[in-house]
Amino acid sequence: MTFQFKADPDAASPLYMQLAHKLAQAIRQGEYHAEEALPSERVLAESLELSRVTARKAIDRLVEQGLIIRKRGSGNYIAPKLEQPLSRLTSFSEELHQRGFKPSSRWLSRSFTPAAPDEQLSLGLGTGERVARLERLRLADSVVMNYEVTVMPEAVLPDPMAVQASLYEHLATLGVAPVRALQHIRAINADAKLAGLLEVPVGQAVLFITRVGYLESGLAVELTHSYCRSDYYDFVAEMRREG
Amino acid sequence: MTFQFKADPDAASPLYMQLAHKLAQAIRQGEYHAEEALPSERVLAESLELSRVTARKAIDRLVEQGLIIRKRGSGNYIAPKLEQPLSRLTSFSEELHQRGFKPSSRWLSRSFTPAAPDEQLSLGLGTGERVARLERLRLADSVVMNYEVTVMPEAVLPDPMAVQASLYEHLATLGVAPVRALQHIRAINADAKLAGLLEVPVGQAVLFITRVGYLESGLAVELTHSYCRSDYYDFVAEMRREG
Repeated sequence: MTFQFKADPDAASPLYMQLAHKLAQAIRQGEYHAEEALPSERVLAESLELSRVTARKAIDRLVEQGLIIRKRGSGNYIAPKLEQPLSRLTSFSEELHQRGFKPSSRWLSRSFTPAAPDEQLSLGLGTGERVARLERLRLADSVVMNYEVTVMPEAVLPDPMAVQASLYEHLATLGVAPVRALQHIRAINADAKLAGLLEVPVGQAVLFITRVGYLESGLAVELTHSYCRSDYYDFVAEMRREG
Repeated sequence: MTFQFKADPDAASPLYMQLAHKLAQAIRQGEYHAEEALPSERVLAESLELSRVTARKAIDRLVEQGLIIRKRGSGNYIAPKLEQPLSRLTSFSEELHQRGFKPSSRWLSRSFTPAAPDEQLSLGLGTGERVARLERLRLADSVVMNYEVTVMPEAVLPDPMAVQASLYEHLATLGVAPVRALQHIRAINADAKLAGLLEVPVGQAVLFITRVGYLESGLAVELTHSYCRSDYYDFVAEMRREG
């Protein structure tokens, strides 16, 4: 363990907050590997020459912030966390990989269906036109982070079974990867089906994101509904004042 | 009523969806005043020479989308909707005003308190330093849209009672309006207190936004926790692919 901490006697905040802040920084900077347990409260207290109360309160704080998952009897583990900037299209796989998690997809279905009315409107399709429908769970290590349903015109994605882990990589090889997307962000209560998929209690608040992706030409090629566990996602937006 | 609608016999989607889409456009473009009722299903059907079933299904769709509030016995009203771009700092008051709603704030408290540990960290304050704490409900007409708690260093906001409807306008007159902000967006379940304030059922999924606002110098001057009714807010992010 390379973690270093020196209490600042002149600091504003109590010792446990200083420690929690330092640990949070270390976690966010990826100093702990995802599958690695944090040092126990006892080890932390002894190695840093702090009281166990301070160590425990610091860990409590990190659990509250969703940075750590406490597993009964086996210690404290780094929680998967996907920082998702809202101003650029990023790759789920890449972001997680950089943080030391193993990203994966579990396909629930890949098929063609007639476009539903709202899909026709979003994608500018005519009656009877079909869409490729991709339904999957996305995981970090063994933890389900989101459930995603993507719909694309058949002409854009003629072979949905050919999509591997990364949809956007596949679209890039076809020359139809969206370069721009509009996202709408809402909060919804998980119904029984969604709760089962995301492994959360029924009624749990979940982030519900609707994305329409466009080619440079302005053509809408992707409609995605994404249901994200709020405890594992960190959606960040940077705003600037205009003028 | 200036609303025009002509069914497109070649269109992909069923008639009621076409009508719903047209009405949604009209509502989004502000063609109906906020305090105005929509034409009733009967009037809509007669004036557009459509069946009442089609009119009702179109209205149903708009209620589902949260564009319309159905008030028993008195008709269908435009729901307040605040489209909030996530890339620029905008004024709640101005945005609502443009959409024909009357924005207002209901102050719950304006006082000084000792900075809590996380407030000290976010705002870089020392032990014992005080913050101005502003707690308010924000309304569109008579509908509560969000509950907001803003904390600022006493040195930045020495007289919280002087803040009127717009905090940012007040800060501008003091020369300390944030020019940049970082927002984190989560979904949470409303507890009893929050549910009471927002007039939603306990457990309702609500958007929870934490914002830290900065001056050009990089100084953090504002920490705001905002709890937004997801049915009335439409957070929009435009993303671009990098490189």
